[in-house]
Amino acid sequence: MIMDNIDSKILDLLTENSRMSYVEIGKQLGVSRVSIRDRIQQLVNKGIIEKFSVVINSEKAGKNVSAFFEVDCEPKALVEVAEALVNHPYVASCYQMTGPSTLHMHVLVEDMGELENFINNELYALEGITRVESHILLRRFKSRSGLKL
Amino acid sequence: MIMDNIDSKILDLLTENSRMSYVEIGKQLGVSRVSIRDRIQQLVNKGIIEKFSVVINSEKAGKNVSAFFEVDCEPKALVEVAEALVNHPYVASCYQMTGPSTLHMHVLVEDMGELENFINNELYALEGITRVESHILLRRFKSRSGLKL
Amino acid sequence: MIMDNIDSKILDLLTENSRMSYVEIGKQLGVSRVSIRDRIQQLVNKGIIEKFSVVINSEKAGKNVSAFFEVDCEPKALVEVAEALVNHPYVASCYQMTGPSTLHMHVLVEDMGELENFINNELYALEGITRVESHILLRRFKSRSGLKL
Amino acid sequence: MIMDNIDSKILDLLTENSRMSYVEIGKQLGVSRVSIRDRIQQLVNKGIIEKFSVVINSEKAGKNVSAFFEVDCEPKALVEVAEALVNHPYVASCYQMTGPSTLHMHVLVEDMGELENFINNELYALEGITRVESHILLRRFKSRSGLKL
Amino acid sequence: MIMDNIDSKILDLLTENSRMSYVEIGKQLGVSRVSIRDRIQQLVNKGIIEKFSVVINSEKAGKNVSAFFEVDCEPKALVEVAEALVNHPYVASCYQMTGPSTLHMHVLVEDMGELENFINNELYALEGITRVESHILLRRFKSRSGLKL
Amino acid sequence: MIMDNIDSKILDLLTENSRMSYVEIGKQLGVSRVSIRDRIQQLVNKGIIEKFSVVINSEKAGKNVSAFFEVDCEPKALVEVAEALVNHPYVASCYQMTGPSTLHMHVLVEDMGELENFINNELYALEGITRVESHILLRRFKSRSGLKL
Amino acid sequence: MIMDNIDSKILDLLTENSRMSYVEIGKQLGVSRVSIRDRIQQLVNKGIIEKFSVVINSEKAGKNVSAFFEVDCEPKALVEVAEALVNHPYVASCYQMTGPSTLHMHVLVEDMGELENFINNELYALEGITRVESHILLRRFKSRSGLKL
Amino acid sequence: MIMDNIDSKILDLLTENSRMSYVEIGKQLGVSRVSIRDRIQQLVNKGIIEKFSVVINSEKAGKNVSAFFEVDCEPKALVEVAEALVNHPYVASCYQMTGPSTLHMHVLVEDMGELENFINNELYALEGITRVESHILLRRFKSRSGLKL
Repeated sequence: MIMDNIDSKILDLLTENSRMSYVEIGKQLGVSRVSIRDRIQQLVNKGIIEKFSVVINSEKAGKNVSAFFEVDCEPKALVEVAEALVNHPYVASCYQMTGPSTLHMHVLVEDMGELENFINNELYALEGITRVESHILLRRFKSRSGLKL
Repeated sequence: MIMDNIDSKILDLLTENSRMSYVEIGKQLGVSRVSIRDRIQQLVNKGIIEKFSVVINSEKAGKNVSAFFEVDCEPKALVEVAEALVNHPYVASCYQMTGPSTLHMHVLVEDMGELENFINNELYALEGITRVESHILLRRFKSRSGLKL
Repeated sequence: MIMDNIDSKILDLLTENSRMSYVEIGKQLGVSRVSIRDRIQQLVNKGIIEKFSVVINSEKAGKNVSAFFEVDCEPKALVEVAEALVNHPYVASCYQMTGPSTLHMHVLVEDMGELENFINNELYALEGITRVESHILLRRFKSRSGLKL
Repeated sequence: MIMDNIDSKILDLLTENSRMSYVEIGKQLGVSRVSIRDRIQQLVNKGIIEKFSVVINSEKAGKNVSAFFEVDCEPKALVEVAEALVNHPYVASCYQMTGPSTLHMHVLVEDMGELENFINNELYALEGITRVESHILLRRFKSRSGLKL
Repeated sequence: MIMDNIDSKILDLLTENSRMSYVEIGKQLGVSRVSIRDRIQQLVNKGIIEKFSVVINSEKAGKNVSAFFEVDCEPKALVEVAEALVNHPYVASCYQMTGPSTLHMHVLVEDMGELENFINNELYALEGITRVESHILLRRFKSRSGLKL
Repeated sequence: MIMDNIDSKILDLLTENSRMSYVEIGKQLGVSRVSIRDRIQQLVNKGIIEKFSVVINSEKAGKNVSAFFEVDCEPKALVEVAEALVNHPYVASCYQMTGPSTLHMHVLVEDMGELENFINNELYALEGITRVESHILLRRFKSRSGLKL
Repeated sequence: MIMDNIDSKILDLLTENSRMSYVEIGKQLGVSRVSIRDRIQQLVNKGIIEKFSVVINSEKAGKNVSAFFEVDCEPKALVEVAEALVNHPYVASCYQMTGPSTLHMHVLVEDMGELENFINNELYALEGITRVESHILLRRFKSRSGLKL
Repeated sequence: MIMDNIDSKILDLLTENSRMSYVEIGKQLGVSRVSIRDRIQQLVNKGIIEKFSVVINSEKAGKNVSAFFEVDCEPKALVEVAEALVNHPYVASCYQMTGPSTLHMHVLVEDMGELENFINNELYALEGITRVESHILLRRFKSRSGLKL
């Protein structure tokens, strides 16, 4: 078994507040501070916890437009295109999926003008891209922070 | 201006380690502990920092299959379907986008059997779903934690 | 022949400035004021000039989001859906085209929130709509005013 | 606020008849001629009124076929193709949208023969176009003049 | 063997001129009038020649618009829809093909207004049609008369 | 008016039997032989009757497989590809339509082997073809001979 | 490890000739007859060998048409439709895949008439099927017998 | 007639157990051992039985991921691409179908990592491939062994 029940509860608490002290976590779960510290160390060592981080509200931080892209590439160029895209600060994530041979990419920009500029001057300028499809976030029903997609 | 340069650097540091102490952040940025505390409090008050959290590696936590869905609904049922889906523990995120009138959904499951069961017994059982398209993660080129999509 | 060369030039001048006086038009084209007045009257009588109007810049008038929709309907409901849509103040135009049995619709709204509200609460609420595809204006290369599409 | 209620009513009146005198507008709205003149001047200065123009009925002016095109381009060539297309007199409008990386274009021609000639000899002759989809207007349910799309 | 070489040549001559006399055909092929008569009788008896007919130029006969339709039906209704469509005088042909479960239909009408009327008032009024795609002839590169498609 | 009622009836009779004598047509329509001869001559002179021909049953003549193709071309190559295709004896018709920039082509072959050979060795060998979609006739609901599509 | 090297070689020999005697297999692999018998028994017990069977050439057995179907269902009906289809003797295989919510089905029939009958009278008669796409085998480049897909 | 009733029953028995002795088959069908031997020999000679083989359960043999691919090629390269693909040990089958000009391919691999490696390093490295679509088996409703697709 990867994690026992107490590990899961520790992850739940840290997901909601990663600055919670070992003492407080221990109190809530009825376990000693030392045991909590050791278990968290184990979760980090096993790579289950990748990092302690913050969830930033992108709109409130000035990124008003959240766009999803399907990027069609010449098959031979796909990995190279992906590696170029992931270096761009607007690109939040970039995946290869089953289905069509496209890259699936999430982009956060300040406004539509910045998006148009990104598409025409940066995305379309890359070698090996044959077609792009973009969509813009209308409504966020759920966005779970914590678990990496 | 939403944030000044020091706010941005605080966010960068917290994104990498949300348990870093105010003293340490202050030392790295050449700012007093009190100022750091106040600025972080401001970032929380403005809603820029939504929460202090952890990034969990989904595969290492036993979620081996990461799937993306396009869920076509009868237009009238879209919001209701979305509200039903976001309550499901496998559903990590659910968005409405421009483009086709579908819901875009990320799902994390343990294995292909759990995925097949989710599709046939839970997703297809919902009223108002007319067509579903699913794709599975092949390769993760970038997955930025911190900024909410 | 529908129009002679002088008629065409009158239309060009009026397209650029519909408040230009008959005298001024006559001077520019080397034709008498009376002849200009008669010719314009003819263009109105024949229905070539539908109306004297203004071109309003939609962004500057507060309509920041220009969206194009493809609205799929149950074939039997298409005309009824179209007639409901054209009464909505956000809908700038609505056409039936060859190709797929959709309605092609242009919508002008103030922001993405108003668009999301229009889609979920007004468009999706109409009987007979089976699927909607929406796209948002990124860049306007040309937008000829005057000739009705 | 961009415009107050009287500005909106002035725009409505000018949209229906851009040759209406300041006196007449003033009388209808219960405002002085001078105030109307100043407000219209403001609307022009702010760029809200782009120009005073006419709405021409394209069929009655001999343009019997109204066609919509989706023009797929090699991404690198998109802006260049758009700039070539907007210079063509048949092209009434040309937009870049979210969604697929195509140009959306409206074309007005006299008949199907002129359309076929435009497609085969002018559109297909441009460098960088990879695929074209054309549709022809069947029925116009609404075509709002005035507000620029 | 279905036909010998002389049969083929007879079919070629009749395809070009079905009123040619047996004597003339016989002279051109170096065969007796009686043999020609018997062979043509055989071709009719075997069903190879379905009928002696004329090729009518549809545009010159007033059918200016030649349209192709893909008609999507509820699977259960496909045969019934097809049988309703083939009775319509505008419908020149109607086929079921492999590929998507649509009916492929050729329609000849006088003008775009008649087409719009056919689509909205006759085609869309049929029970069981879920979606229609229409295209209009731009250019005819080849149209072989004689062999039934 | 292009044709009067008697012309239409003559066309109907000739469509069913193009070898019918002038005398017989005249008798059926209550018109003199000379008048029928003159009217038919007029229909030929105006190009309404393109030719007197036969309808050949393609399956009975050994063409068991009737296939429809959508041939995608590089836009610049479309006319050249069409001109190459129309010279091929298997190709019964070839059209350019509105909709996607493809050629629509009907092909008649003896069997699936001949079809596979045509696709791989003749169609795919042409310069400028980028993609081909083929469908095979399952059922013929109506196939009007006479009127050219 | 699931199988060692000798197990693999046994499977290779049986795939090519499942009637080969234990003695012969043993001789070829330099292993005793008893060991071969025990290993084959193990492969059967573990379920690796599902059965000893024959590869039948479908065309030579009179099944001239091999068709692939994509069957779209109402999501709720998918499992029920699949269970109805697998009972049909023409259906060779039926799978649910990621991607669109269709059933992927292989069908073997004697000729196109049998296929048309199967589609119109059996497939389209099932409740819950919304759309069907069919394709026919043109050329078989590889068809590995033995490993179950 | 290709096969009589007894031949069919022999094929059924061999499909279920290809190691069954001639004596046993004869007993079950009420036919002599010699007759069975001769009939099976005939079925092999006519090519109806291609080989005596085994059905291997791919998951139990370690092939956990069964994937279907649609491989789009430049038309000129299709046969060459197919011939390269069929030599790859992961490729279980490869077909050319009517419909889009793609290759339909079944691939069996051990896990998603092996699939990602196959796609990016082997499939995308082939000359002439323009686009790939992949789908993964979710559920097997029927998989008939014996009859070659």
